Amino acid sequence: MHKMRLLYSSLSLLFPRRAAEPWCKRIARTWAFNTTAAPADLNRFVARTKTCGELRSADVGQEVTLCGWIQYQRRGQFLVLRDFQGLTQIIIPQDESASHLKKVLCDAPVESVVMVTGTVVSRPPGQTNPRMPTGEIEVKVKTAEVLNSCKKLPFEMKDFVKKNEALRMQYRYLDLRSVQLQQNLRLRSQMVMRMREYLCNGYGFVDVETPTLFKKTPGGAKEFVVPSREPGKFYSLPQSPQQFKQLLMIGGLDRYFQVARCYRDEGSKPDRQPEFTQIDIEMSFVDQAGIQALIEGLLQYSWPEEKGALEAPFPSISYNEALAVYGTDKPDTRFGMKIVDVSDVFRNVETEFLQKFRNEPHSTVKAICIPQGARHLQKKDLESLNELSKSQFNQEISHCILSSDGSLNSRLSRYLNEEQKLELIRTVLANKDDVVLVAAGGHKKVCSALGKLRLESADLLEERGLPLRDSSAFHFLWVVDFPLFLLKEENPNELESAHHPFTAPLPSDEHLLYTEPAKVRGQHYDLVLNGNEIGGGSIRIHNAKQQRFILETVLKEDSELLFHLLEALDSGAPPHGGIALGLDRLICLIVGAPSIRDVIAFPKSFKGRDLMSNAPDYVAPEELEPYHVQVTWPSAEAKASAN
Amino acid sequence: MHKMRLLYSSLSLLFPRRAAEPWCKRIARTWAFNTTAAPADLNRFVARTKTCGELRSADVGQEVTLCGWIQYQRRGQFLVLRDFQGLTQIIIPQDESASHLKKVLCDAPVESVVMVTGTVVSRPPGQTNPRMPTGEIEVKVKTAEVLNSCKKLPFEMKDFVKKNEALRMQYRYLDLRSVQLQQNLRLRSQMVMRMREYLCNGYGFVDVETPTLFKKTPGGAKEFVVPSREPGKFYSLPQSPQQFKQLLMIGGLDRYFQVARCYRDEGSKPDRQPEFTQIDIEMSFVDQAGIQALIEGLLQYSWPEEKGALEAPFPSISYNEALAVYGTDKPDTRFGMKIVDVSDVFRNVETEFLQKFRNEPHSTVKAICIPQGARHLQKKDLESLNELSKSQFNQEISHCILSSDGSLNSRLSRYLNEEQKLELIRTVLANKDDVVLVAAGGHKKVCSALGKLRLESADLLEERGLPLRDSSAFHFLWVVDFPLFLLKEENPNELESAHHPFTAPLPSDEHLLYTEPAKVRGQHYDLVLNGNEIGGGSIRIHNAKQQRFILETVLKEDSELLFHLLEALDSGAPPHGGIALGLDRLICLIVGAPSIRDVIAFPKSFKGRDLMSNAPDYVAPEELEPYHVQVTWPSAEAKASAN
Repeated sequence: MHKMRLLYSSLSLLFPRRAAEPWCKRIARTWAFNTTAAPADLNRFVARTKTCGELRSADVGQEVTLCGWIQYQRRGQFLVLRDFQGLTQIIIPQDESASHLKKVLCDAPVESVVMVTGTVVSRPPGQTNPRMPTGEIEVKVKTAEVLNSCKKLPFEMKDFVKKNEALRMQYRYLDLRSVQLQQNLRLRSQMVMRMREYLCNGYGFVDVETPTLFKKTPGGAKEFVVPSREPGKFYSLPQSPQQFKQLLMIGGLDRYFQVARCYRDEGSKPDRQPEFTQIDIEMSFVDQAGIQALIEGLLQYSWPEEKGALEAPFPSISYNEALAVYGTDKPDTRFGMKIVDVSDVFRNVETEFLQKFRNEPHSTVKAICIPQGARHLQKKDLESLNELSKSQFNQEISHCILSSDGSLNSRLSRYLNEEQKLELIRTVLANKDDVVLVAAGGHKKVCSALGKLRLESADLLEERGLPLRDSSAFHFLWVVDFPLFLLKEENPNELESAHHPFTAPLPSDEHLLYTEPAKVRGQHYDLVLNGNEIGGGSIRIHNAKQQRFILETVLKEDSELLFHLLEALDSGAPPHGGIALGLDRLICLIVGAPSIRDVIAFPKSFKGRDLMSNAPDYVAPEELEPYHVQVTWPSAEAKASAN
Repeated sequence: MHKMRLLYSSLSLLFPRRAAEPWCKRIARTWAFNTTAAPADLNRFVARTKTCGELRSADVGQEVTLCGWIQYQRRGQFLVLRDFQGLTQIIIPQDESASHLKKVLCDAPVESVVMVTGTVVSRPPGQTNPRMPTGEIEVKVKTAEVLNSCKKLPFEMKDFVKKNEALRMQYRYLDLRSVQLQQNLRLRSQMVMRMREYLCNGYGFVDVETPTLFKKTPGGAKEFVVPSREPGKFYSLPQSPQQFKQLLMIGGLDRYFQVARCYRDEGSKPDRQPEFTQIDIEMSFVDQAGIQALIEGLLQYSWPEEKGALEAPFPSISYNEALAVYGTDKPDTRFGMKIVDVSDVFRNVETEFLQKFRNEPHSTVKAICIPQGARHLQKKDLESLNELSKSQFNQEISHCILSSDGSLNSRLSRYLNEEQKLELIRTVLANKDDVVLVAAGGHKKVCSALGKLRLESADLLEERGLPLRDSSAFHFLWVVDFPLFLLKEENPNELESAHHPFTAPLPSDEHLLYTEPAKVRGQHYDLVLNGNEIGGGSIRIHNAKQQRFILETVLKEDSELLFHLLEALDSGAPPHGGIALGLDRLICLIVGAPSIRDVIAFPKSFKGRDLMSNAPDYVAPEELEPYHVQVTWPSAEAKASAN
């Protein structure tokens, strides 16, 4: 839920005057191109002479024309007019000669669109509104015209915020009038514009549009298909322009970027969209450090001023360390509660809880310390954390409470002598009233479980009023040195790409490709913001022989499907690498929205539906004919699978 | 065919230094925002220290690192290195100590990618190349590394230009290395960037991404369908964001633009693409003149400097006048040969040729005058023009030749007296050796036929060496006052929208909606460049009642499909209008490319195929299962239709 969804709430609702002022005055610039020299002209080409957000005392005496929506009408005397820039109070003359004017304006329902012409006057003493940017003036109306009478609203607009999201999505055009959505979409537009300035004007990147009607990629199970007019043949909507960006480098484009529409059919995953946008980048003759520096500069340059300056370089952590310390490859580094290895403490402790894991490979004992957990978490909270760990990770958790008298209370504590207790407290840096969660078992499972509990308990503490994560802080983090391959879950004797098969191995690990491929690390890097993966990329393989070896020998995939790429890699391929940033998620985190749906103009529901137009929808069989497909209705499917 | 497709042709091939310099210094600016202050830094983040296009005499003595493709190698002494910026000559030391270096560089095949480090030296006197921007210097190599050896080329690169387009599309990554494609894609990127600066920074437009997985629009017969996971339900890839842009205005966004990917399944129409790009724009509180001024400013601001300044306002012509004078709604105004009404000349002439049209409604006699036609066109040319007119328009043409002695030779001339002959010559402004084509019949058919012949005969004259159309001239033209509705071809008792059902009528014609809708003109405007429609737009209906009347009563369409839009129009809809420019076609005309395929990085063939990856392709039945569709193979289709 949006905490601050101010929608038509009051007259003093403050629209920020963003678009009319240079919205971003950068602090640290390492180069000198392009700063917006003049504010955008918002009144050219149109009927108004001023927006509803810009009139001030200095404008008193001017005759102006405003266009906007009736936000509010009071006692036949006042009208508040709203547009994307703000609110302006309109004053209606009360004399007989203006009775027609009064009737026109007072008969118009709220949310009707009107054009008024009038004179800017100062508000009478005592009636100024300092919380409203236009609060010093009002416009005494001379002529008015109702351009569109609002005949139909699904509900009182002031109740809109209370409505459920489905209704808000059905009437998206009304929700778009809210301050929050206006701000989100405008910030998105401006930030992308700044990114383009940086890339295109600053560093000579070429904005190249790549096709979205493409061919199914090997293993691209989540790709939508588009039937073509050739019987049995389908296009595919690609998940990213990966192949094209590499081919552009081989084609000598040198520096490519695109704000690329991508598609992924993920069924009903929460907060995913079937189509999404990424800032897609590829460079030739670059290494990992080059891409990282480029992206740090990109974010610094495009970062909204009001969110504070970004410091660079961003910190970096290896995949292994991230897993060991945060139990995840996308750590939220805004707060501590790091995972600590306490194996040494428990080395000689004999309990059933520990014993059964002793013989597991990579067995370990780890802990996290929940600050003030004893004061803020109840017994049932600790139980539910344990339940979560068991159900999601099959991992038992034991907890110890460091009480105010310094004693350690736990099922475990009876197995620990005083020295071991003290060592545990010292190792996890526990203070009075902290709770220590201990887990024993295989390294990856233990860390993953504790990483999850770290986040869960932070949520719980914050719910109880103990702030841990600064919501105005932005902690970027590079995660690097990922394994190039993972064991397939369904068959641990086979390997699959950790990211995609085009990622180059670390040069120092290359020799392992032929002997122990599972140990090879890749030149892959993820960009993480406050615990969310917002980008990922890699240096690519630019050697056909190595690419073929990985596809055929390591991954056992059909390289024929990538014949064109392999051929291209033998035709003069420069070393190259790139990255893609998830724009929707990035903007969502910057504006603090609860869902990426709040930074997309017309999002789909979590089931992939457009609730406004009711898409997807049935299509007449004759419309499918040119595409040589027919619907298999579920009953027929059932019959077919029964046969 | 590309006339100037210079591909690896010679050392003196001149790469323009575009990206490294502010590529556009505008002449006429009506406002002051944003001029690129510094050239793009092309060497940051990467292994090179200089591009292959930037070294000059002033750099002599510098140690530099260059990365690029081997363009050429000569006698083990010289190498020409190429990148996207240009060519640099590398000189290989001939002393024994550098023998390894020599071997490395000379063994590398042409089109291999190398990195060289060396010292910039002046070329010896007499060996400078003034046609090459880097022709004053060469780089004496100290170290060299082959980054990718070019093992496989489908053919000698120097022959590439001679290969057919299918082969060039199959090896698109090689074709992309050509000067022409590099220039086209870079100009496209830069021009779009300028458009964004104008719209976003200059006038506060918001770049909003709208969905491409949408719902089939009424009558949207050319929309690709995308099966969803709901049985029988399909998304549709929309032909334009029309509905969304209108809903954004109703949502109060005020000024929207998007470089929008659009989709149209046109089968195998020549020089069309199944996906294409339009500059999509919508504004609130705007009228036709406002949109036109916006677009004129947009094109002036983004216009490539080297193509000369654009003058604005652009001329405007009504649909009726365009048809009468040029026989088309997209006139090429770079040359004359206008259609002239010669009905008066033939008023009293009795020939069979004229007689049979006398009683047709709107019957007329029109002519065009082909300058110097008698000298450049042969009898068979005139016959083929007549054939063309008959086959395409069912329109008979008669021609008259004004010979050098002033006499008019024609099958017609025996029916004309001297005065009538003179009047014809005067009316069409014919000179000696001109050919006059005369057509009689219904107004529209006669004009259309003559309009077509005007273009055909211009082609013929130009083939014969008589230039008519300046290929470096850019004649923009607004075509306005289109009819709002057209008679349906298949049923002339019914009306269909001339453009789309959202176009507002001209206010002065509104009353005719209810009485003679076929006479209503719309607030639609097309933008034409050199005879090509490159944009179109309209002021939209913002009144639900009028929109419903047009949909239901005039067009007899099912308004239920647009229920959400009709509902939105009753919820406070501002007056609004917009336009869409066809970006591919616009760039194609600016760079003078023969096909839009030359301004698209990875175009489809005219059959909609990607010849490089072989898309579309077969998909396994199990991959279709989640989408509840199956292929109807042609044999099955035949069987079904036989039943």
